[in-house]
Amino acid sequence: MVGVTAQTNAAGAPASDPATAPMTPQQYGVGARFTLSVYDSNYVEIILGALAEADATGLTIETGDISTFLTGTEQRVLAYVADVIAAASRSGAHLSASILLSRGCPGELQCALPPGVPALGADPVSLETTGVRARAHWSLYPLLDAGADSRRAASGEAEPGEPGDTGSGDHMAPIYAAIDRARAAGVYSGSDHYATRLDGDLAEVLQTAANAWIEVGAAVQHVVTHLTVSVNSPTPIPPGA
Amino acid sequence: MVGVTAQTNAAGAPASDPATAPMTPQQYGVGARFTLSVYDSNYVEIILGALAEADATGLTIETGDISTFLTGTEQRVLAYVADVIAAASRSGAHLSASILLSRGCPGELQCALPPGVPALGADPVSLETTGVRARAHWSLYPLLDAGADSRRAASGEAEPGEPGDTGSGDHMAPIYAAIDRARAAGVYSGSDHYATRLDGDLAEVLQTAANAWIEVGAAVQHVVTHLTVSVNSPTPIPPGA
Repeated sequence: MVGVTAQTNAAGAPASDPATAPMTPQQYGVGARFTLSVYDSNYVEIILGALAEADATGLTIETGDISTFLTGTEQRVLAYVADVIAAASRSGAHLSASILLSRGCPGELQCALPPGVPALGADPVSLETTGVRARAHWSLYPLLDAGADSRRAASGEAEPGEPGDTGSGDHMAPIYAAIDRARAAGVYSGSDHYATRLDGDLAEVLQTAANAWIEVGAAVQHVVTHLTVSVNSPTPIPPGA
Repeated sequence: MVGVTAQTNAAGAPASDPATAPMTPQQYGVGARFTLSVYDSNYVEIILGALAEADATGLTIETGDISTFLTGTEQRVLAYVADVIAAASRSGAHLSASILLSRGCPGELQCALPPGVPALGADPVSLETTGVRARAHWSLYPLLDAGADSRRAASGEAEPGEPGDTGSGDHMAPIYAAIDRARAAGVYSGSDHYATRLDGDLAEVLQTAANAWIEVGAAVQHVVTHLTVSVNSPTPIPPGA
């Protein structure tokens, strides 16, 4: 990640000692950065309306001119993003959302957590059906700067049960498992260069990406996933896509 | 990367043996996926006009309803993306571009190149000044699926001069060097959670991200970088940003 050098967590509080206290989602760097683009001259009204409808309980949100940052539990982060996109979609306008989800690397230019902190799992998210059809390009990245444990796991050196153990010795296994679940759920739409295509209710599309990110994150400290979500596009869907 | 299983390269041709022939950019998976979002009800006209102005020489381009894929040399890929965004920006409309650049992992769900192929360098890109001010959030990802050599380099096990040797033994060094160059050029605007903020002429913003991606890619096989670029935003720039 390129991305302050202060040794504080995402919420600005001093990090607790991971050996003595469980980390909060903020301390572990759980959060999102997203940009909602509305292809309509009334975009200000549509975006402000959508933000007013979304439930921000439990979240720290910072909005800038390029993107919006939010941190909190995986469930609250994803529910908020789903709320905002669904509300804006109901305007009927074509929109595109660029979403980055990150776990395990709080801070900015440098991680506030040292490499090799044990990777933390989390419960999968569960989102209410939105009634909004979404199509997305999705990519998932387990990162080399994740620290010694996850690197050892990725290179097959971790012992079963150790921090960093991926179970299968391969971080791709949970990614393939997530894609199998997406196929079974009918959300998988195909694989393109650099990204997997998802198609379904907005809630299912976001859940698929988020739950794979969480599952890989149980073995690899720093995991990032990116989605570009398209709603109400007038562009014909290409054959086979 | 999540994103078919056929053992062919990005252009659909059989991969040549890297031991006997140099790989083309297409064979090495050099390319981009991007989405241009125009916050204006005349977006179709603005986007089609911008595409008509851009020089597609040397590129394979596939446009879908979610995003556009292109492959070719780093220079041609970045020049095309700069052309399209600059032309659309001249409409005066607010726009946001979500850009993914990838090297070292052609194919789709699985890499068509096996892990451990020697990482290939490339010349830095050089883009003509556009006269368009752009602000961006930028993230750079050296990936765990990059293969044995790059994993060895990242964990400090590669010998100097071996494939996968990063020189410094740390893939973060070229990232920090790129940020130092961005500071010197006046393009670095700050570091936020999960992303570095860039601000300058669109050409300088894209060059900064692309050249760091290329430089890290000389040591790590699979490197991806994401940018969200904002132009003509009516949102006030936050103090200090």
